[in-house]
Amino acid sequence: MEELLYGVAYYDEYMPVERLQTDSRMMKEAGINVVRIAESTWGTLEPSDGKFDFSHVDRVLEVMHKVGIKVIVGTPTYAIPTWMARQYPDILAVTPSGQRSYGARQNMDITHPDFRRHAERVIRQLIGHVKDHPAVIGFQVDNETKHYGTSGANVQKAFVTHMRGKYPSLEVMNHELGLDYWSNRINSWEDFPSVNGSINASLNGEFSRFQRGLVTEYLAWQAGLVNEYKRPDQFVMQNFDFEWRGYSYGIQPDVDHFAAARAMDIAGVDIYHPGQDDLTGTEISFGGDMARSMKDGQNYLVVETEAQGFPQWTPYPGQLRLQAFSHVASGANMVAYWPWHSIHNAIETYWKGLLSHDFKPNPTYNEAKTIGADFKRIGDKLVNLKKNHQVAILFSNDALTGFNSFSFGWDATENYNDILRPFYDALYRLNVGVDFVDPSSKNIEQYKLLVVPVLYAASDELLQRLNDYVAKGGRIVYTFKSGFANENDKVRVVQQPGLINQVVGVQYSQFVLPNKVSLAGDPYQVGDDNNSVSHWMELLTPTTAEVLARYEHPVWGQYAAITRNQFGRGSATYIGFMPGTELIEKIMLQALEEAKLMGPDQQLHFPLIVKSGVNQRGRIVHYYFNYSADAHTFSYPHAGGVELLSARPIKSGSTVTLTGWDFKIIEEATVKQ
Amino acid sequence: MEELLYGVAYYDEYMPVERLQTDSRMMKEAGINVVRIAESTWGTLEPSDGKFDFSHVDRVLEVMHKVGIKVIVGTPTYAIPTWMARQYPDILAVTPSGQRSYGARQNMDITHPDFRRHAERVIRQLIGHVKDHPAVIGFQVDNETKHYGTSGANVQKAFVTHMRGKYPSLEVMNHELGLDYWSNRINSWEDFPSVNGSINASLNGEFSRFQRGLVTEYLAWQAGLVNEYKRPDQFVMQNFDFEWRGYSYGIQPDVDHFAAARAMDIAGVDIYHPGQDDLTGTEISFGGDMARSMKDGQNYLVVETEAQGFPQWTPYPGQLRLQAFSHVASGANMVAYWPWHSIHNAIETYWKGLLSHDFKPNPTYNEAKTIGADFKRIGDKLVNLKKNHQVAILFSNDALTGFNSFSFGWDATENYNDILRPFYDALYRLNVGVDFVDPSSKNIEQYKLLVVPVLYAASDELLQRLNDYVAKGGRIVYTFKSGFANENDKVRVVQQPGLINQVVGVQYSQFVLPNKVSLAGDPYQVGDDNNSVSHWMELLTPTTAEVLARYEHPVWGQYAAITRNQFGRGSATYIGFMPGTELIEKIMLQALEEAKLMGPDQQLHFPLIVKSGVNQRGRIVHYYFNYSADAHTFSYPHAGGVELLSARPIKSGSTVTLTGWDFKIIEEATVKQ
Amino acid sequence: MEELLYGVAYYDEYMPVERLQTDSRMMKEAGINVVRIAESTWGTLEPSDGKFDFSHVDRVLEVMHKVGIKVIVGTPTYAIPTWMARQYPDILAVTPSGQRSYGARQNMDITHPDFRRHAERVIRQLIGHVKDHPAVIGFQVDNETKHYGTSGANVQKAFVTHMRGKYPSLEVMNHELGLDYWSNRINSWEDFPSVNGSINASLNGEFSRFQRGLVTEYLAWQAGLVNEYKRPDQFVMQNFDFEWRGYSYGIQPDVDHFAAARAMDIAGVDIYHPGQDDLTGTEISFGGDMARSMKDGQNYLVVETEAQGFPQWTPYPGQLRLQAFSHVASGANMVAYWPWHSIHNAIETYWKGLLSHDFKPNPTYNEAKTIGADFKRIGDKLVNLKKNHQVAILFSNDALTGFNSFSFGWDATENYNDILRPFYDALYRLNVGVDFVDPSSKNIEQYKLLVVPVLYAASDELLQRLNDYVAKGGRIVYTFKSGFANENDKVRVVQQPGLINQVVGVQYSQFVLPNKVSLAGDPYQVGDDNNSVSHWMELLTPTTAEVLARYEHPVWGQYAAITRNQFGRGSATYIGFMPGTELIEKIMLQALEEAKLMGPDQQLHFPLIVKSGVNQRGRIVHYYFNYSADAHTFSYPHAGGVELLSARPIKSGSTVTLTGWDFKIIEEATVKQ
Repeated sequence: MEELLYGVAYYDEYMPVERLQTDSRMMKEAGINVVRIAESTWGTLEPSDGKFDFSHVDRVLEVMHKVGIKVIVGTPTYAIPTWMARQYPDILAVTPSGQRSYGARQNMDITHPDFRRHAERVIRQLIGHVKDHPAVIGFQVDNETKHYGTSGANVQKAFVTHMRGKYPSLEVMNHELGLDYWSNRINSWEDFPSVNGSINASLNGEFSRFQRGLVTEYLAWQAGLVNEYKRPDQFVMQNFDFEWRGYSYGIQPDVDHFAAARAMDIAGVDIYHPGQDDLTGTEISFGGDMARSMKDGQNYLVVETEAQGFPQWTPYPGQLRLQAFSHVASGANMVAYWPWHSIHNAIETYWKGLLSHDFKPNPTYNEAKTIGADFKRIGDKLVNLKKNHQVAILFSNDALTGFNSFSFGWDATENYNDILRPFYDALYRLNVGVDFVDPSSKNIEQYKLLVVPVLYAASDELLQRLNDYVAKGGRIVYTFKSGFANENDKVRVVQQPGLINQVVGVQYSQFVLPNKVSLAGDPYQVGDDNNSVSHWMELLTPTTAEVLARYEHPVWGQYAAITRNQFGRGSATYIGFMPGTELIEKIMLQALEEAKLMGPDQQLHFPLIVKSGVNQRGRIVHYYFNYSADAHTFSYPHAGGVELLSARPIKSGSTVTLTGWDFKIIEEATVKQ
Repeated sequence: MEELLYGVAYYDEYMPVERLQTDSRMMKEAGINVVRIAESTWGTLEPSDGKFDFSHVDRVLEVMHKVGIKVIVGTPTYAIPTWMARQYPDILAVTPSGQRSYGARQNMDITHPDFRRHAERVIRQLIGHVKDHPAVIGFQVDNETKHYGTSGANVQKAFVTHMRGKYPSLEVMNHELGLDYWSNRINSWEDFPSVNGSINASLNGEFSRFQRGLVTEYLAWQAGLVNEYKRPDQFVMQNFDFEWRGYSYGIQPDVDHFAAARAMDIAGVDIYHPGQDDLTGTEISFGGDMARSMKDGQNYLVVETEAQGFPQWTPYPGQLRLQAFSHVASGANMVAYWPWHSIHNAIETYWKGLLSHDFKPNPTYNEAKTIGADFKRIGDKLVNLKKNHQVAILFSNDALTGFNSFSFGWDATENYNDILRPFYDALYRLNVGVDFVDPSSKNIEQYKLLVVPVLYAASDELLQRLNDYVAKGGRIVYTFKSGFANENDKVRVVQQPGLINQVVGVQYSQFVLPNKVSLAGDPYQVGDDNNSVSHWMELLTPTTAEVLARYEHPVWGQYAAITRNQFGRGSATYIGFMPGTELIEKIMLQALEEAKLMGPDQQLHFPLIVKSGVNQRGRIVHYYFNYSADAHTFSYPHAGGVELLSARPIKSGSTVTLTGWDFKIIEEATVKQ
Repeated sequence: MEELLYGVAYYDEYMPVERLQTDSRMMKEAGINVVRIAESTWGTLEPSDGKFDFSHVDRVLEVMHKVGIKVIVGTPTYAIPTWMARQYPDILAVTPSGQRSYGARQNMDITHPDFRRHAERVIRQLIGHVKDHPAVIGFQVDNETKHYGTSGANVQKAFVTHMRGKYPSLEVMNHELGLDYWSNRINSWEDFPSVNGSINASLNGEFSRFQRGLVTEYLAWQAGLVNEYKRPDQFVMQNFDFEWRGYSYGIQPDVDHFAAARAMDIAGVDIYHPGQDDLTGTEISFGGDMARSMKDGQNYLVVETEAQGFPQWTPYPGQLRLQAFSHVASGANMVAYWPWHSIHNAIETYWKGLLSHDFKPNPTYNEAKTIGADFKRIGDKLVNLKKNHQVAILFSNDALTGFNSFSFGWDATENYNDILRPFYDALYRLNVGVDFVDPSSKNIEQYKLLVVPVLYAASDELLQRLNDYVAKGGRIVYTFKSGFANENDKVRVVQQPGLINQVVGVQYSQFVLPNKVSLAGDPYQVGDDNNSVSHWMELLTPTTAEVLARYEHPVWGQYAAITRNQFGRGSATYIGFMPGTELIEKIMLQALEEAKLMGPDQQLHFPLIVKSGVNQRGRIVHYYFNYSADAHTFSYPHAGGVELLSARPIKSGSTVTLTGWDFKIIEEATVKQ
């Protein structure tokens, strides 16, 4: 890409009044240069079976092209039309809690042959219809695709077929998945019961993996269809999203992001986050790092993010700017709001767009105009930012599924992301740039420091690879439960932590739930309030490791809590419990120092957030964000250059002041060597 | 009516032992002069299909008549017999959560043809059987009727037929209801999906309105049947109830009270309320004001209220009297307890009647005897009390449905009544007499002050009518979200607050959730604890309005919170957030003063509650209630007269003392001019 | 039995690796002398319909026998194989919340003819196969059997048949169950609706009793089959369990323990309990007292208890010993852990066994070795301990069902066990040995003190029996709601407390929920924090009773809260509310003193717990347990003897010190007279 894209989702179909000319003008005035259309509009595109009506698409393309706004066209498949639900009642997915109703989006069985047949037809019709239009720069396949829990008879049948292909025999399958337990043994493929009632985490893990595979296959199938039509200058992408907690929180449990992204030309993501006093930028950074990592460091598109959003998100003055440039600072080449205007009825009425329901300029729209202007003015120095991070977090959907099957016990509500995110957040607050890797990544070995939260389920091969990484000089920070089970969620029979115990230099065979436990002697000097041991507690005995912290407890005080072990040319830290925010930061600082990764950016700390990269002119660009309402001052430590927003030169060592929610962008003067 | 009715529900059918003679004697001793029978006894009245047995009814009529107790006979249709459930399994209503089970009452599809056919037969048989009995003074059709969520295939079919009749074309319907959103467009009536899964608030609003219409039609149908039989001196009524929160709380969401009451000769209601230390009289007043308003100020019947009730309601000494006379003070002509005796098994065992399970006199029964005696002694001066209120609250079932679709956000649990009730309660505590009006009311314009909480969904016509009301001198207090959407729950495209913005003289296009927000400078002097802004917060900009309060907040401090605007000969107050109890009282006082509605009763305040009206002798009667355990003293401000309970004269300006839970009733000496 | 059994559950079928030889050796080293096998392994025993494979059973029998470990063989019926679920889909129980899924255990309809047919065949095959093996000492039928809520059409049909047999006519049934209420009257047996939707507590009570009867019948049927095969020296038992609250809490609602135990040779129970700082020994005592009482004081087997268990249970050093000997001190002849090794996948992965997943010795296993050694060394002095308790608690499954239908009101979550357990716990803390009796017990009259919590539903016959017991010199402590309803959950029409009011010398007809109520004047001197009245409050008026406590409340202060009445040669205490822990202890102390049951053991108090009995050598054995982490010292008050663990003599009056979680066992020197 040659310029930053500044976009909105636009639904001519939903308009209560004629708006197209006025909207295109107001967009233009705000610097909007791309709109995303057509996803979720199947009911309008194909009002009855086989009857297509592209009038909304055509008129949007025409008007947008006229004013010079580009268009991304989405396949409309994630919300099925009423006629389809009537003709094929079983297209509505059967899930463990029953069949889905018509009304909501994302309620279909994505494997259903009739759904697929109709989806293929509408995709071919739509893409064939628009592909030659000069305004169209790319395509989105489906939207926020997941498997929606589809697990009816046909999915079960496909799963059994999959298992027959995967396992050489029932004997092997029964053994690998431990099905003898509670008489669940399957002695004939015909007997294979629905997985929906299973209490076997291994079988459930297989099924979850299979369901994620359905998403990968479905998206690749759609991309393949689009690829048959698209021009060489057009791209195909999907809008991936994250574990949802009222906002984009963590790893998406239902999709293998790295696998599903392979069929795409470019990564696209949804990033929604808390706002007003709760705005921290963490999700912007997290979602961006994940999106960038999906396609090996390639720049990505923020396909949806909030403009006004929910009432609790409506940005304070300055925050919309802060958010937009934060996306770009993480490597985004597009920032697009959902949606242009606020929806006038139905479930998303209070998820407001850039315009309110009255379509008039408002403070948020007015601030967007300044962003559009700045993107145009200095965007060529910001677009295509490249990163070269030394630290990666290893995540795993298999580990996620495995851990979540048990969490910290039967009443516990914490899931995998409750462990992963605090580690990510600590690095964010320390201004350490992070990539993500998963077990399929080829580039794990390139990092100087690997953070591995709760790698519950992992193959021998993966653990051996991590052992080799340390032996050859790598550094790992592991948490509790890593190595505990194999890729089938069977707990390893060997000494825990399984297969990595020599590398981490500790062993344990018992674990408890901490109750009034802290770290003895406050070794990280975080004070009583932050020194507590929570959620889980492995009773670690060092073999070769150095003890960094012990538990303070009348009975368990003999055991280690955090250890570090030299192994080969590298080292591994092992954390036997769930630390709080402050402790994690201190443990991470210790690991960063050891890995010689402390730099000038680590002198600053949240709410001062630093991001950097190399722009397409080969110069390093530094972003300094103030994620607070208070002013902050710091000394600029890097080579001199130009503050791009003000176009003023800045010297190394200069004092910089950021007012509340403000930011600066500094391009170094000389090209990076 | 010529006397106050003092009644009980009586179920000879449920008696574990023979009680009729003894009960009638004990009733007589307590002054009970009416019993309500037969509702919910279908299984006894028609033990098998077509076989009728009126023996319980007959013997109750005979014995009651003998001792001079009147009888109200209920149609038995709200609990179906076992044989019906077996013969017509699909009479049990299909709801969004599945088909109802047999066992509970109110589980049937009130539109089912077989149910209707059998209901008609039993009604004709029963009413035909008893109509000529001299003890029978009236009839109740069904009981606490609602639609019970019925939404199976037949209801869906009727709804589609209704929609075909309502909308000129699918095109119009799709547009009006915004069905293009998420592909929900309906292009053929045959495709119309079940509304149960809909995420479209407009469509759901239509269906809710249709469901409430089913109740109106069903009750009118029953009343029509009864009317074929009843004597001119007999009445037909229904026992309406309220939103239930363990007691009668607010507007009934599932019934259009005003519409359904039209087919009735007289309004009847259930009023259950907290007791003991939590007794405030608010629900007695609220339910009474609603019942009286249902039939344009006509007196009403309290068909059910608690005697002992739940263990937490068992009245303190004096409270049963306080409650009974509070009903009469609101305009009730009957106070009836549910039930006479406590039920000996099944779900309502602990919802105790006037007698405990032992059928012996108890403190509550003994107190009832004094009430019965007083009703007899002075009832002719209390019955048929007429009101002439200057203040009304405008409620709307459409606004209720619309607001509740969204509340204050996805996690919010507040509903429409959580906004309406605090406004009602404030007026109650200020001793301001209130009527209710709804959009169908012809008499809205007669009031000097109209309180309009959260009129979320409203037609242009209604809003224009309210604008005209102000222009001609009326006064309105609006809350946030009023005017926001049209009658189809589509947010208005015009400047908010939609259609009323000129009248209220403010505009806004953004709203947020308040977080540590208060009113700047405590303009109502309620102190820090009561000055907070909660739940919702519109960022108001006055156009012509005077600002009564601004928000205290580092960012939103520029916006108005409460405004008042002169428009034509009237004025309108607009409240952009949800105030607490104290603030609402102060805002109401301000509006009352402006409307010149402050009188001597406003010198008193809860727990001293004042009610008044004109009795059938043309004299003003004043009630003074002490809703607390402590004694209170006040100066009687009205014209001299007689305290009716003591039969002692009282002069204007006399000092009156009320002991805990006590009350006085003063009839002015001279006929009202 | 001649020796204490020390056992584990062993599943050769579930082993991820070959373990049998090593495991048997490690068991032997730990003193394990019995393993329980085969329950829940139907899928392995009969991998396809009619094809049996006893290889796992055979090899375990062979190896265990070789090392001298005995075996208990369980019928495998509580988890059905996959082929059965496929062949007979309706074997999966239909419950009020729908049909159960395949996957979990205990999901079948235990009345289903096909299930029964297959269960009979596998039982006959298995028991026939193993009965002659010399290692086999006994059999377990099924496991933790309950009715699993089975209530589909076939169960409903059987229930109707049962009711036809029980009641002489529908007329009688309708009257007894109060079915006229809400038209639930049944006028034809064909009309009998499914009980699943019933709101009638009487009918629900009948159905619950019927469902418990299904369990009794099913277990007796299995025991009958086993009895056809078993040798005279072999026993048959069932593993009963308790109301589950994450551990074994109270009376099992779904099984009539006393009735079901009749078909067994010996009682067996599951006892799981909190651990670490929360270890109190209460559940060990409670479960043991119940198990012992099931078979009239006969010794029992602890078939399952925790070794490491959940992470929050992993024992502190010393606790595993404390627990094991506490079981024996209550009369257990076997203590068996579930399971030997920790399960490597599926739902119970974190319910750890004696070994961790690594199969290596760990601190818990190492401690077990000392227990095994001690059992072997001194077991002959501990086994077959006999008790002669003077105090019994009367429980009733009918009262449980009845009370739970209503609890303390519609929002209340307390159930019957929330009342029973605090009374049990108080006696435990006071070191008072307790038996349990139920209405079927023949030996109620033998006790000096009977504690009767919330005997909600009871027949005239039972209450008359209790009245006679008092008249003849017995002492009863009743709580609120006792006598309230008859055996059909119909509230008694007579003066409350029904049928017992003369014996307790009080009457009431009203009850309320206490709100800021305490006992006037703190009569038990427990201090403000412990003197509160909660949950329920009957307004008691003494007739002949002495008032022990009155309520402190502005209105209810005239009523009694606790009374005592002399009746005939005995006396009865009546408690009108739910007291807290401290109050219950004081009330119990008062009752014990009156019954002259205070002895030297009552000088000690929890955490010092005393248990005693007479061993098979005719000597009294005293156990002193320290259920705390702190050391405690006391003076040994009984006759001199030998401390068995140390084999040191001890004199009466000696000072004994117990360190944290420690215990002593003293055998008196002389045979009991």
